[in-house]
Amino acid sequence: MASPDQPPPQAAHHELRTARNSAGYLLEALELLHKVNPRITLLDVGAGSGSISATLARELQPDGRVIATDVNPDILERARTVAEAAGVTNIDFQQADVLGRLPFDDATFDVTHCHQVLTHLPHPVDALREMLRVTKPGGIVAAREGDLETECVWPELPGMVKFHALTANFIKLAGGTSKAGRQLLSWALQVGSGVHRDQITPSFGTWCYYDSTERKIWAQAMVDQLRIGRLREIGLAAGLGTEDDLEEMATAWEEWSESDEAILGMMHGEILIRKK
Amino acid sequence: MASPDQPPPQAAHHELRTARNSAGYLLEALELLHKVNPRITLLDVGAGSGSISATLARELQPDGRVIATDVNPDILERARTVAEAAGVTNIDFQQADVLGRLPFDDATFDVTHCHQVLTHLPHPVDALREMLRVTKPGGIVAAREGDLETECVWPELPGMVKFHALTANFIKLAGGTSKAGRQLLSWALQVGSGVHRDQITPSFGTWCYYDSTERKIWAQAMVDQLRIGRLREIGLAAGLGTEDDLEEMATAWEEWSESDEAILGMMHGEILIRKK
Repeated sequence: MASPDQPPPQAAHHELRTARNSAGYLLEALELLHKVNPRITLLDVGAGSGSISATLARELQPDGRVIATDVNPDILERARTVAEAAGVTNIDFQQADVLGRLPFDDATFDVTHCHQVLTHLPHPVDALREMLRVTKPGGIVAAREGDLETECVWPELPGMVKFHALTANFIKLAGGTSKAGRQLLSWALQVGSGVHRDQITPSFGTWCYYDSTERKIWAQAMVDQLRIGRLREIGLAAGLGTEDDLEEMATAWEEWSESDEAILGMMHGEILIRKK
Repeated sequence: MASPDQPPPQAAHHELRTARNSAGYLLEALELLHKVNPRITLLDVGAGSGSISATLARELQPDGRVIATDVNPDILERARTVAEAAGVTNIDFQQADVLGRLPFDDATFDVTHCHQVLTHLPHPVDALREMLRVTKPGGIVAAREGDLETECVWPELPGMVKFHALTANFIKLAGGTSKAGRQLLSWALQVGSGVHRDQITPSFGTWCYYDSTERKIWAQAMVDQLRIGRLREIGLAAGLGTEDDLEEMATAWEEWSESDEAILGMMHGEILIRKK
């Protein structure tokens, strides 16, 4: 990746995410827990460049604390910069891999949260179980996962339709699923660990991008993925598309970003699990 | 249809809709207009059995008023019963067809609203233009339309996948589109009538059904459509499926409604147009 002073070129759109626009389903329950315990702790698993972590930390000021983790230590340097730029100091950073065992004792955190993590994992139920393990009784596990098959783009340029197929295949190639959002309830019911249906609250939320600034950030990130990024490298190697296909997709994103009628939406599954 | 004392058997799920769960994107703007003018009027176009109309009327009590219209006078009798059951009296009912000319003068209403109407129309831009005509300057046109292609069901029983294709083809057969939600912004920009981009606020919202009561209401309505309804009649006549196909779909809905891991979501496009 580039310097932590800049968003990663292929993932600048991730930093459009905030607690309000991407963890709204959690905020009411979080506020209640925070009132009861001002020194609340929240573990953010797979925090990436941390714009959600930092804005969650802001919700927990002054005495609550966020611990932001990611499997990639480089991206956590960017997350540190994002938090500093947001003026947030009640946050720590630690490398951790939810695919294995999280480096925390049982019942450590009041809230354990992830966003767009389980969709990439071959064993999402194991990850949810591990998140539950490190959560205190009475606490909450919260997960929000895109359901890529609900991605909704207008105008529907042929290159955009091809791009959708490429990204769905890319996720599947790594053992993930393009239909994570709709499966969260089912995964939560498979966790075991004493979790029953009445402890689970599912919902759906959306992203919606249409103004010219957001369109440009989003489209540029997609273009970077297609022209210089891992999506290109792996997609070409795996035969998910040709160089010409990828260039058609990149050009389509550029055309989309220039259009006043352009809009992009995606539905996300959301789940709160109250640990007993 | 059956008696107005009961929800229409094939559309009982429509009455799960309320102002809060299906017109939330409008409520803040509506409250502001209502504060300025307590005698606000709202036209609801294509109100169907009117559960959204009645709950919008409740938001406008005591002196605001809703005029609920539908092309089908029978369904308005049910809407009258729904409003009475909700204890709402600031509402009137009138047969009207937004496909032609609405029977109202220019600039009559403070707010003109529709929900799941434009998706069924061959000329949605004309309908939006007609809604704008009857709205006062300074008022609002509000539309919320499903984007059926974002429908998200789990578990994904084969009969459910077939049902999705059947309903999408059914909408297209009547000249509608299964991708209305994502096109609202584009349609609004085509209205003309002096509407510019900065008067338009798009968003996406969702439906989410998963508890056992909602699952049963939803599934029963689908089963009725497949076994006794217009969907069956027209679907069979148009060759959209065989009797065996339809029965497989009905059985799948019954199985889905019994499953604790069952969930259904759909993304809706939403738009507010501020008339100048």
